[in-house]
Amino acid sequence: MTDQKKPDQTTASEKPWGGRFSEPTDAFVEKFTASVGFDQRLYHHDIEGSIAHATMLAEVGVLTAQERDRIVAGLREVKADIEAGRFEWSVSLEDVHMNVEARLTDRIGVTGKKLHTGRSRNDQVATDIRLYLRDEIDVIAEELKRLQSGLLDLAEREADTIMPGFTHLQTAQPVTFGHHLMAWYEMLARDAERLQDCRKRVNVMPLGAAALAGTTYPIDRTLTARLLGFDRPTENSLDSVSDRDFAIEFCSFAALLMTHLSRFSEELVLWTSAQFDFIDLPDRFCTGSSIMPQKKNPDVPELVRGKTGRVNGHLISLLTLMKSQPLAYNKDNQEDKEPLFDTVDTVKGCLKAYADMIPAIRAKADNMRAAAKRGFSTATDLADYLVKKGVPFRDAHEIVGKSVAFGVAEGRDLSEMTLDELRQFSDVIGEDVFDVLTLEGSVQARDHLGGTAPNQVRAAVARARKRLRLV
Amino acid sequence: MTDQKKPDQTTASEKPWGGRFSEPTDAFVEKFTASVGFDQRLYHHDIEGSIAHATMLAEVGVLTAQERDRIVAGLREVKADIEAGRFEWSVSLEDVHMNVEARLTDRIGVTGKKLHTGRSRNDQVATDIRLYLRDEIDVIAEELKRLQSGLLDLAEREADTIMPGFTHLQTAQPVTFGHHLMAWYEMLARDAERLQDCRKRVNVMPLGAAALAGTTYPIDRTLTARLLGFDRPTENSLDSVSDRDFAIEFCSFAALLMTHLSRFSEELVLWTSAQFDFIDLPDRFCTGSSIMPQKKNPDVPELVRGKTGRVNGHLISLLTLMKSQPLAYNKDNQEDKEPLFDTVDTVKGCLKAYADMIPAIRAKADNMRAAAKRGFSTATDLADYLVKKGVPFRDAHEIVGKSVAFGVAEGRDLSEMTLDELRQFSDVIGEDVFDVLTLEGSVQARDHLGGTAPNQVRAAVARARKRLRLV
Amino acid sequence: MTDQKKPDQTTASEKPWGGRFSEPTDAFVEKFTASVGFDQRLYHHDIEGSIAHATMLAEVGVLTAQERDRIVAGLREVKADIEAGRFEWSVSLEDVHMNVEARLTDRIGVTGKKLHTGRSRNDQVATDIRLYLRDEIDVIAEELKRLQSGLLDLAEREADTIMPGFTHLQTAQPVTFGHHLMAWYEMLARDAERLQDCRKRVNVMPLGAAALAGTTYPIDRTLTARLLGFDRPTENSLDSVSDRDFAIEFCSFAALLMTHLSRFSEELVLWTSAQFDFIDLPDRFCTGSSIMPQKKNPDVPELVRGKTGRVNGHLISLLTLMKSQPLAYNKDNQEDKEPLFDTVDTVKGCLKAYADMIPAIRAKADNMRAAAKRGFSTATDLADYLVKKGVPFRDAHEIVGKSVAFGVAEGRDLSEMTLDELRQFSDVIGEDVFDVLTLEGSVQARDHLGGTAPNQVRAAVARARKRLRLV
Amino acid sequence: MTDQKKPDQTTASEKPWGGRFSEPTDAFVEKFTASVGFDQRLYHHDIEGSIAHATMLAEVGVLTAQERDRIVAGLREVKADIEAGRFEWSVSLEDVHMNVEARLTDRIGVTGKKLHTGRSRNDQVATDIRLYLRDEIDVIAEELKRLQSGLLDLAEREADTIMPGFTHLQTAQPVTFGHHLMAWYEMLARDAERLQDCRKRVNVMPLGAAALAGTTYPIDRTLTARLLGFDRPTENSLDSVSDRDFAIEFCSFAALLMTHLSRFSEELVLWTSAQFDFIDLPDRFCTGSSIMPQKKNPDVPELVRGKTGRVNGHLISLLTLMKSQPLAYNKDNQEDKEPLFDTVDTVKGCLKAYADMIPAIRAKADNMRAAAKRGFSTATDLADYLVKKGVPFRDAHEIVGKSVAFGVAEGRDLSEMTLDELRQFSDVIGEDVFDVLTLEGSVQARDHLGGTAPNQVRAAVARARKRLRLV
Repeated sequence: MTDQKKPDQTTASEKPWGGRFSEPTDAFVEKFTASVGFDQRLYHHDIEGSIAHATMLAEVGVLTAQERDRIVAGLREVKADIEAGRFEWSVSLEDVHMNVEARLTDRIGVTGKKLHTGRSRNDQVATDIRLYLRDEIDVIAEELKRLQSGLLDLAEREADTIMPGFTHLQTAQPVTFGHHLMAWYEMLARDAERLQDCRKRVNVMPLGAAALAGTTYPIDRTLTARLLGFDRPTENSLDSVSDRDFAIEFCSFAALLMTHLSRFSEELVLWTSAQFDFIDLPDRFCTGSSIMPQKKNPDVPELVRGKTGRVNGHLISLLTLMKSQPLAYNKDNQEDKEPLFDTVDTVKGCLKAYADMIPAIRAKADNMRAAAKRGFSTATDLADYLVKKGVPFRDAHEIVGKSVAFGVAEGRDLSEMTLDELRQFSDVIGEDVFDVLTLEGSVQARDHLGGTAPNQVRAAVARARKRLRLV
Repeated sequence: MTDQKKPDQTTASEKPWGGRFSEPTDAFVEKFTASVGFDQRLYHHDIEGSIAHATMLAEVGVLTAQERDRIVAGLREVKADIEAGRFEWSVSLEDVHMNVEARLTDRIGVTGKKLHTGRSRNDQVATDIRLYLRDEIDVIAEELKRLQSGLLDLAEREADTIMPGFTHLQTAQPVTFGHHLMAWYEMLARDAERLQDCRKRVNVMPLGAAALAGTTYPIDRTLTARLLGFDRPTENSLDSVSDRDFAIEFCSFAALLMTHLSRFSEELVLWTSAQFDFIDLPDRFCTGSSIMPQKKNPDVPELVRGKTGRVNGHLISLLTLMKSQPLAYNKDNQEDKEPLFDTVDTVKGCLKAYADMIPAIRAKADNMRAAAKRGFSTATDLADYLVKKGVPFRDAHEIVGKSVAFGVAEGRDLSEMTLDELRQFSDVIGEDVFDVLTLEGSVQARDHLGGTAPNQVRAAVARARKRLRLV
Repeated sequence: MTDQKKPDQTTASEKPWGGRFSEPTDAFVEKFTASVGFDQRLYHHDIEGSIAHATMLAEVGVLTAQERDRIVAGLREVKADIEAGRFEWSVSLEDVHMNVEARLTDRIGVTGKKLHTGRSRNDQVATDIRLYLRDEIDVIAEELKRLQSGLLDLAEREADTIMPGFTHLQTAQPVTFGHHLMAWYEMLARDAERLQDCRKRVNVMPLGAAALAGTTYPIDRTLTARLLGFDRPTENSLDSVSDRDFAIEFCSFAALLMTHLSRFSEELVLWTSAQFDFIDLPDRFCTGSSIMPQKKNPDVPELVRGKTGRVNGHLISLLTLMKSQPLAYNKDNQEDKEPLFDTVDTVKGCLKAYADMIPAIRAKADNMRAAAKRGFSTATDLADYLVKKGVPFRDAHEIVGKSVAFGVAEGRDLSEMTLDELRQFSDVIGEDVFDVLTLEGSVQARDHLGGTAPNQVRAAVARARKRLRLV
Repeated sequence: MTDQKKPDQTTASEKPWGGRFSEPTDAFVEKFTASVGFDQRLYHHDIEGSIAHATMLAEVGVLTAQERDRIVAGLREVKADIEAGRFEWSVSLEDVHMNVEARLTDRIGVTGKKLHTGRSRNDQVATDIRLYLRDEIDVIAEELKRLQSGLLDLAEREADTIMPGFTHLQTAQPVTFGHHLMAWYEMLARDAERLQDCRKRVNVMPLGAAALAGTTYPIDRTLTARLLGFDRPTENSLDSVSDRDFAIEFCSFAALLMTHLSRFSEELVLWTSAQFDFIDLPDRFCTGSSIMPQKKNPDVPELVRGKTGRVNGHLISLLTLMKSQPLAYNKDNQEDKEPLFDTVDTVKGCLKAYADMIPAIRAKADNMRAAAKRGFSTATDLADYLVKKGVPFRDAHEIVGKSVAFGVAEGRDLSEMTLDELRQFSDVIGEDVFDVLTLEGSVQARDHLGGTAPNQVRAAVARARKRLRLV
């Protein structure tokens, strides 16, 4: 019997598209090309989209009110089934869309088949992902704000705590720990802006583009868009089903955010090392070693730093995916989901870990201060002092350079030299030099918008609270 | 004599920072670490920034009016020298900043050394790049608009031209060429939006952050920002000197734009092939072969497609560069310039090529139409026809699938079958079916926002012209 | 009661490293930092490694023979449990190693705790991944060979089938389909070589490096290496626990392989389009459309093409991960597994799909031949003809160029012109020209190593069979 | 007059392929598509390839001996002209190949036009790049060996110098500085192997593939390959002109090498910080600050670390470039050169900088030792001691964990506790414990292949010298 089916094969005619096929799909191919293993997480948004679609179809007269009601009720039952664990996902039904629709038809009969009127899986999946991503963006925005808010509190608390500011990881000038934390804040503030810019381009509705060209039914896309909370329908059907810019743009946002977190992480790892010893991370954010009993490892920052690679990788995946694709939908696009999903999960996890961890950081102010005292961190202040006494800047720079060379040789900081010692390099130096060589003097002197003076830091925190709408 | 200098070495004391060094820089190291070979292109913005800085310093009393005037005049002369080719760039002066300043001091003497008061190369270079990028963004925005405008004209002209719409590169449904071009337009419209979003974050002024902590001089950063056309000064000095987000965000924009151009290019290459033969590209955008005299190769689209890789690469360069960098400035950051410069150049070149080429495309409407007639492109219309006669969509789909299988076997399109032949698959089919099986009928039936009906295409063009402020 | 544990927390003292910790791990942190969710797939290799380790420990006297036997038997039971689904993986035990060891100790008591003597999880995980990857490489090598072999069969069958050879997707010169397929074969032959080169560097044993410095026990690493089939032990303990080169090198191999498959896929998609129509892919490798009943989409090639992005992304993930990591092990490295696992799975799936699909490709020789006849594909032959008659090559090129321009205007191929018509461009042309203007003449004339002449193709197949050890 | 040429345009007929073109190339397009700006660096290899080609053509009778001699002499003169700066590169001649050939024809007349017989620019450029890359690989291999050799000398000198070994940047166990350096050596040893593996696949000759299908001339590719030092000719003409695997494989090698250098750099930056202060880098590898006179920045390591991004980016460029390209040559491929050239230059520069710098590193042994004494680095030794006394490993781990917690609270290292204090955690501890708690004891106890014991380090150096063929 020629039509006998092998146990692990689907006959083409069971497929939503089997009509013209004379041969069943190869069993491995079926599994290889199915997306239901990962796209089932879209079920919620798929069903919301279908409910709105059915509502619109009834509004324009393609469905009767009764058909709409049966479909909507049926979809809600399917959703309840899924959430109660009473739903078995079928690989031979390929994806979340067909799984849901098949179950709907099982439940409500032939009316279920009318739901797909005026749409295609091409515009359906594009709609689902956008709904999903919009909701995740809102969750991420909240978590980001929680982290920013935690940074502001910590920065305010540490607005006067002096630490060495580094360039090239060499001691440069004293700064306050609060000021350093506010640099982190600024990075995140840009991320938050970029996220909202991205959201504008996510929240546009492709539904109604059907397979690629629109549909012959008298659909009302503006209505569907309103029902689903979209800002507007998309402008072009071919673009609607082939556009994945929004996923790439989201991953670009995420790559920059993760880059920032990798920078914070690098510093946390440095600061918890025995050599720096600037901060303490509570045990609950650390783990130990199975072989070295003394270890307390800053696992959370390290892992977050490592996860940067993952997100950069997903960005490249998606850019490579879309390169040179002709219009409109191609099967390649099925590969858009896993990188996007994993990026969302990674970003949410890392932000949660950081938002929990930041408020728990304890500064070791004495160690920070001691480090700032080493390394000639007030050398620039001496140069500025000389300039104010009339020495051209480049000459002052050289005078200080020689003083530092002397200090290195003698093992003493600038503030530890005698006036006579300092004067051997320039006779304009007077007793008042010692005021500018203290850490406090140095920090307070940088008293302008963006400078490290404690009152500037506090002002920056206040402005940031306002921008964040925390006050 | 111990201080004798080898011919290819710089004594440390000639350097702007030589004071504490006991050994000259290694000759190879000097060249390896110098940036003047590529950052000299910033001279214009470096000098503009210096003029604004000097103006502000005079305003707050750090320079006298006379000093300011000499500096400003001197800087203008240096600029004139550079533009007249009378400037020899010195590797031992490391970068554009020191080269300009050294020449200034040569010209106006010791006053020139005062220019660097209250700033550092760290904030100076960050300012230069932002000024440079802002100006290039404005150039790119104009070129992008020119391309968009060319697309609108072509789309309007071809709003009725029927071609096959593809999914999976298989004939799917008829669309109009104008509709297809408007899909391209939509991609670029998002790029233009992203570019402006990026510009907001570029146009913020880091100057005044000095090395990392701000300066002890009573600078007025708001004034300098206004003089340079920045929206505002940055909020945090540490962030100011270490932030390269703006360059990464610009490259993200560019990677998406190039991805779009790669998609257009792919289609142009397909359409100019003997197999598709949908369009003609004028000879002036093509080149030939040194061995095959008959060849006319679509070089411009191919090359643009290839350049996508370049920009994706630069994006990865910059993300990798910034990963895990501790605050504040590190020498690594010198590597930010070449990827950014090359991305700017690439984007400008590709946009210019496309903006010139698009209006010159000539559609071969007969070939497009013939292709649309093949491939059962109105099969969906038949399915919709059945549904409107009361057949559930999924059943209609199967009926049409069988009709197509019959057509494949017989070598005839749906519109070429007899009514009897069609009715063997469903007896609801009537004489009126042939209205929906024509290409024009199919296209005109998709008459909703975003659909391919010619009047929808024209309406989309009109809306787009308004958005672009062309009307 | 202060020591009361919240339900979702682990007390630090349950951890393998809890001794110095005063606070339990945060519940979210525990989950966030655990790897057992994905590293459990290493269980087989983890247990093999442990058996070899225990065997060696007994050999050198650290364990008694009885202890060894109990451990080995216990480990085999654990493995059986896992494979029978009788094993519940615990997130609070972090990873596969601790899960297996905890179960071992449950089973055999305190002796189980001795297994970890002289090793650490740092060298253990490095060993597990290498064992895993070595085995997967061998599977991949076999699948690759199966695909290569299928290509050779098809190439031999189609050694005489003429098709147009393209450059710039423009018809260039006639080639044979067999020759084209052998180009694909060559790409894969390089991949196979690179895979074996990679294997050499995978198959080296890090075990014995312990945490980072080696161990104080008198271990015999050469023995353990032999027991596990490694070529040799690694040379340096710090490098052993921090090296992930092998994973990156494997992903580099995979990225190139996928790039090749993306090129094959692009061509298959083109060739199955209505415009080219060069081949037929059996229905079982295609799927249909839920809305367009006529569609038969080349899903497998498209999906494989899309998966290229995924693997490029994983390569970038791993390179980004390792950038700037100080020695020795850092928690970041936990992120090495998922990209590697997914790369392995992707490569295996795509190779299987291709190895199944290639032999099923059916060439449409008539269409290929008709296409080759169009597009002046024998123009180079005419040029060569002229040169052999004494015309300098560059002049011949121009003569042919003009003949082609004439042909384009007249709508006729070179072989369709009269002798008089041809002679208006050069009077050296004689009647014998028509021999070189046939497709067969053109193809057979390229009769040297690497050329497209059918007998060269057959010779290339024969040589390849020998290299592949198929004969 | 129709043939009047605008000043900045080339008439199509001046081009090597102008015959069939009716319109000159657009001036901007000419510049946009020309490669001579960057491919002129291939002139040497282009001319070598041409000399071999001409020699072979004479051998098989396509050229006369006299023609060959004139061509060869002419090419040598062209080369001399280029090297003497007497050569003006022309953009309208597109690339290095046409520039050289045009000059040859200028010099020797019509015979020069015969050189292009039996080849195309497609196989010519592929040959040039391979010749170029093979030579550069040999230079890089030498520089890599010089760096490896410098590491071996330094490692031997520092085989006994104790420093803290880190995991998670937390003090883990004492190691020797020599051992740490040998970890770096191992990374480079793998790079050197990969480079030679890559070279095998670079050194294969595509010449003779002509445009894509081979040539009708009776060429002897084996002879040409021998003349140019290639291992063999390629097997397939289509593959020959479209293959860029070798460039991608080289960039993969380079990305891993740069990743290693970024790791070394990270450590050098850490070690020169005031907090670590483990080593001294001579002034000649550092630079200073224009504003902070005390700074001595480790510029070379930082810059090398930054350059990692550049090479990762180029790898992605090339992978993206090749994705989905149909056979055979496409214009996209012109984009292969700049990423490859810049990767070669970057790798050579970074290796030279490192090979010069490494021997100049001065270890601060006292600081390293002091750091190793802090941080309970011998805790594992205590655990091993306990195990040897019969305590199961996991229990010993916990005992030591508690001892460390006590030490943290008391501010004392394990070796600084009294026997009584230690015995409160386990009564198996005896007086002999203090032998294992010294740094020397700890290091010497790790005395097996790959362990950190000084004699193992020396043995590793000796083996490495042998592998490197330095002895």
